[in-house]
Amino acid sequence: MHPVLEILSQGEEIITGQTVDTNSAWLANQSVELGFHVSRHTAVGDNLADLIKVLTDISQRAACCICTGGLGPTCDDLTAEAVALAFGLPLLFDEEAFKHITHFYSLRNRRMPESNRKQAMLPTTSERLDNEWGTAPGFAVQVNQCWFVFLPGVPAEMRNIFLAHVKTKLEHRFPLHVKTLVTLRTFGIGESEIQQRLHAIQLPDDIQLGFRAAANEVQVKLVFPANSLPEYIHAYVALYTQELAEFVFAIDGLGQDTGDLFETINARMTQKNLSIAVIETLSQGLIASFCGRGDWLLDAHYHHSTKNLCTKLNVFFQTDNICLLAQDLALAFKPHTDAEIILIQLVIGTPEQKIDKHQLIDVHTMLLVTGNFYHHHKALAGDFKHKQHHAACLALDWLRRHI
Amino acid sequence: MHPVLEILSQGEEIITGQTVDTNSAWLANQSVELGFHVSRHTAVGDNLADLIKVLTDISQRAACCICTGGLGPTCDDLTAEAVALAFGLPLLFDEEAFKHITHFYSLRNRRMPESNRKQAMLPTTSERLDNEWGTAPGFAVQVNQCWFVFLPGVPAEMRNIFLAHVKTKLEHRFPLHVKTLVTLRTFGIGESEIQQRLHAIQLPDDIQLGFRAAANEVQVKLVFPANSLPEYIHAYVALYTQELAEFVFAIDGLGQDTGDLFETINARMTQKNLSIAVIETLSQGLIASFCGRGDWLLDAHYHHSTKNLCTKLNVFFQTDNICLLAQDLALAFKPHTDAEIILIQLVIGTPEQKIDKHQLIDVHTMLLVTGNFYHHHKALAGDFKHKQHHAACLALDWLRRHI
Repeated sequence: MHPVLEILSQGEEIITGQTVDTNSAWLANQSVELGFHVSRHTAVGDNLADLIKVLTDISQRAACCICTGGLGPTCDDLTAEAVALAFGLPLLFDEEAFKHITHFYSLRNRRMPESNRKQAMLPTTSERLDNEWGTAPGFAVQVNQCWFVFLPGVPAEMRNIFLAHVKTKLEHRFPLHVKTLVTLRTFGIGESEIQQRLHAIQLPDDIQLGFRAAANEVQVKLVFPANSLPEYIHAYVALYTQELAEFVFAIDGLGQDTGDLFETINARMTQKNLSIAVIETLSQGLIASFCGRGDWLLDAHYHHSTKNLCTKLNVFFQTDNICLLAQDLALAFKPHTDAEIILIQLVIGTPEQKIDKHQLIDVHTMLLVTGNFYHHHKALAGDFKHKQHHAACLALDWLRRHI
Repeated sequence: MHPVLEILSQGEEIITGQTVDTNSAWLANQSVELGFHVSRHTAVGDNLADLIKVLTDISQRAACCICTGGLGPTCDDLTAEAVALAFGLPLLFDEEAFKHITHFYSLRNRRMPESNRKQAMLPTTSERLDNEWGTAPGFAVQVNQCWFVFLPGVPAEMRNIFLAHVKTKLEHRFPLHVKTLVTLRTFGIGESEIQQRLHAIQLPDDIQLGFRAAANEVQVKLVFPANSLPEYIHAYVALYTQELAEFVFAIDGLGQDTGDLFETINARMTQKNLSIAVIETLSQGLIASFCGRGDWLLDAHYHHSTKNLCTKLNVFFQTDNICLLAQDLALAFKPHTDAEIILIQLVIGTPEQKIDKHQLIDVHTMLLVTGNFYHHHKALAGDFKHKQHHAACLALDWLRRHI
């Protein structure tokens, strides 16, 4: 049996709809993959009575509850107080927590405001969950039959604390029959096209197949029963990977996860000791920003006017053959950089096409790798932000396929 | 008083985190603007017992409840059945609803699957809510003190039915007094520092004060009672704005919202017909990408090596006075661009300081505006992504303060 888990979000911004609650979905996903049965999500505002009522009800319903929000330093952050009142666990000053908070400020050469002292007050018998990513420590406490985990509402802090401290505690505390989840991470192919490609594959009843569209990828999820043999798992993963071929940029769950599209590229560029220089148009700096912490991006340039760029690089500005223009620019740009790989991005379209969500715009990506040109182009839809983002991902995925 | 409203979402995809529940936030927003007090969001899966329990509880708590999901034709769509069982309102066949469904299919020259007949079964005494955008009709029913509204989970259908049929019914059924929400949007100051600055201001009991840390800003929220006089509102907004001075980049709720930090800058640059050229280091393309769809960013450059950049621009590379170096670079870069504003970003630190989340790195932002230099520097903490993002926001906020 799967232990019952509930998720509780707290905050006026959630309850009034100013913020979409993405924390609950993320936590639910993690919990299901760990082997819990998630039965309910609840969200309440910054109201002590509501909080106390919900916490009490959950403590009588669930085996585990993960809560987010309400741990900040301000007067409307009530979670710890609500726990204390609901379960008769008076708040105690936690030396370690306080050290963490003051350290957070001293590290930034800032004086800690008095109000932050409040964040070091934790309910009696609770276990502190250190937060290396912000000031609010999380905490966990057992009440009746339910183990409560309280995390900050800031998504980055919440996720980091969960992955660093909570996940393993859950695995130890609960009899979870952890299934094996293998995720094929793809870019450049839609969910329905993936389903068509995989349609032919016959899957045994004990393997669950799922799909998930995430930020810069579509994931194919294969859930294998607990204690499946590696051979069994690898056989089916290979079958699916074959069908999706070059669209698969990473496979998670087999022991060597490489991360998202950008982390995968970063790992490969670093490992192969390659370097690149980029000229962007539509993506307007986003390619460079996605290259991340690696030292392999040497130069990145954006020019509002491609004509000016051509003048600077002394390239004849002709738009009737954009592919050739990109090649000329790549060759002209090469002597100006120490990078061995050149990436040129060009667009054909009017300023309106760039920003009007009802119009398509054509984006060209040209790679120059060890003397060879690799050209790719696609018509992009959506508003400017969407086109900008899509163009940057396309360019980097095109790079991934040629290194 | 504001009538209490709750929101209920139903569906396995929500509860397991496969789908982020955007419906609840949208409905909460609409309800708050109408003058309801939204007290709780709940989500449950496709489980009859859970549904019946939640519906019963809500009928004893709230004056109104808006529910989404579970109205589809398949066996796991249980909402109508749950309502029938929870409140003893047997399902009846609704001629009109059935006409709508068959019409929907005939319009598309498709035969209606038998399973869709189920969608025409509505609880006794319920009021049908026509769905011109899909097959599942919504319905509303009064139970105890609570008016329940049931809508499909498909966001487009849900929104359309709400705006076309539900909104006006709510306005007629409930005595609603709409509050005024004014939001001061700040950058460059922490939540607790804001609290300290505002501490002195005495606030009447009928004004609610709230704080919210969002992506690139901290918001101060003032909620004024319905029918507050404009003078009353403006007086207190002015008081708070004065305290937070240059940190306030926008004020929402007074009639001319300008959007987030970047949209605010975009509006001002466009309106003043200004243009800018940027040289980035730590933010690595992110400044350019944040400049958005406006035509006022003319050139943006990133060089991995500041030394190379100096060589290119023929500037003496001296690191003992970074402020002077930034000035030299700005002056040397000016002739290479048509932009009137130059922004130079430089860092002092080792590659380790750039990526190590336990080390600080010093980022300098230098603006050249109509012959004047404006210099700003700050020590940034966190991992590379965090430092990169923070550096970009700092630079653009520095620009905002000088245009």
